[in-house]
Amino acid sequence: MKHIHIIGLGLLGGSFSLGLKKAIAGIEVTGFDKNNAHLQEALSRGIIDQSSDQVPKNADLVIVATPVDTISGIVASLLDDVSPETLILDFGSTKEHICTTLAAHPNRANFLAAHPIAGTEYAGPSAAFPDLLKDKIMILCEPEKTALHLKSKAYEAFESLGMKIRFMEPHEHDNQLAFVSHLSHISSFMLGKTVLDKMEDDKHILNMAGSGFASTVRLAKSSPAMWTPIMKENKENILEALNGYIENLATFRNLLTSDQFEQLAEKMKNANQIGDILDLKG
Amino acid sequence: MKHIHIIGLGLLGGSFSLGLKKAIAGIEVTGFDKNNAHLQEALSRGIIDQSSDQVPKNADLVIVATPVDTISGIVASLLDDVSPETLILDFGSTKEHICTTLAAHPNRANFLAAHPIAGTEYAGPSAAFPDLLKDKIMILCEPEKTALHLKSKAYEAFESLGMKIRFMEPHEHDNQLAFVSHLSHISSFMLGKTVLDKMEDDKHILNMAGSGFASTVRLAKSSPAMWTPIMKENKENILEALNGYIENLATFRNLLTSDQFEQLAEKMKNANQIGDILDLKG
Repeated sequence: MKHIHIIGLGLLGGSFSLGLKKAIAGIEVTGFDKNNAHLQEALSRGIIDQSSDQVPKNADLVIVATPVDTISGIVASLLDDVSPETLILDFGSTKEHICTTLAAHPNRANFLAAHPIAGTEYAGPSAAFPDLLKDKIMILCEPEKTALHLKSKAYEAFESLGMKIRFMEPHEHDNQLAFVSHLSHISSFMLGKTVLDKMEDDKHILNMAGSGFASTVRLAKSSPAMWTPIMKENKENILEALNGYIENLATFRNLLTSDQFEQLAEKMKNANQIGDILDLKG
Repeated sequence: MKHIHIIGLGLLGGSFSLGLKKAIAGIEVTGFDKNNAHLQEALSRGIIDQSSDQVPKNADLVIVATPVDTISGIVASLLDDVSPETLILDFGSTKEHICTTLAAHPNRANFLAAHPIAGTEYAGPSAAFPDLLKDKIMILCEPEKTALHLKSKAYEAFESLGMKIRFMEPHEHDNQLAFVSHLSHISSFMLGKTVLDKMEDDKHILNMAGSGFASTVRLAKSSPAMWTPIMKENKENILEALNGYIENLATFRNLLTSDQFEQLAEKMKNANQIGDILDLKG
């Protein structure tokens, strides 16, 4: 692997480059971001060696790490004249729409649908750091549709970053992520909003906030420019998760309203299991 | 300050003792917990020097750190025959019911209503550690009702732990805490439940969970034995917060259902402000 090209120089694209540069001596990275301030910052932080709005012909990997609703279009047009030795990957948080849209492309074998399970509540190249992807999971969808010799290049890159590879069907991926990622963001955004609404009456309320509040509201700092497209692309699965969540909250409220404290305790005790499962996993 | 006595040797009571023992050489600590395993563990970890189900006559401070619905009763009976030089404090997460119940007690001046804004998702003496209270806020309610010479002993203890003292009215305290603490716990418990419900169909779903999910669901590990009484004592304020939260989530759902993505982006952008405010504070 000698050359990678990255379109979208944000937290994920930037961290992917910084990680590879740390792991593979002499690797060259070019890239582009339509936000010129981000492009300049990526250059000055050494995320890319050179800016280029064209994919270099000798690129081994091209990473598309832009907001998820722009990915299918960008990948389709890159595939139109991709070099035979170049693999195009996307890092989008949803996979079904992308895989369906690209399914019939004549150069489908030059594409790999990927989703690194990593991130922070911060965005842009200033938030990127070399170890973001270390020990994290890389989900791949429909790997059987990608040419073997190109896939090997991607696996080499992921392994050099210390990532663990997992395979999932695109629909299964989007449905599961709605529950374990997208719903958490909505819960956090709306928790933030509920307290901000209250601040209109009482502007000192946040002085009393402890570490528990900070933890549950952390994701409310996330970028709307990234998350609005995820809501759009994964609408049906997110609605399934959000309906379940609102229903559980409404049941909790009904038990509280009617003083059914033993049943409330039972609900909380059941929810404790999530901790045991996460601890086993972690 | 020579002697403190602690009733309820859990995370808060235990950490208060360990912190004071670190800060004040030669301080003696006795205490009691009706859970015998916790009592034995508190002895073996050196949280207390000796177990005693009676308050020693020479105690400077008596801390009542039991579940919040038991506090008024315990404090009232301790006040019945308190020594003139002993101050009784409670560490409950709600304050209005406790202050109202004790308002007319003839020895009210020997009581101080306190709430340390500190905790973790873990409970019991095994979770206690000396620095839990360091740099944290101690909220005091109705300090004007406590005898000055007794309050000084409490301030000395809080300051030796590095705590910052704040004053609030009991009702204001309970209302604000419903929004910045109690609601976070409910949001986390029900987020855990929603994903556990989904696991019945799909038992591998948590393999895909990243750090964002872990952060929002962390409080779902909290103890129902502690939290059910908080729900009971602070029911009306919690319902106000929970109603606001469910309403905000339902609005979010309606915008998503009807494809109003610009307005969704606007909602998320507004919620981002909570991050700026917390960062300023932190």
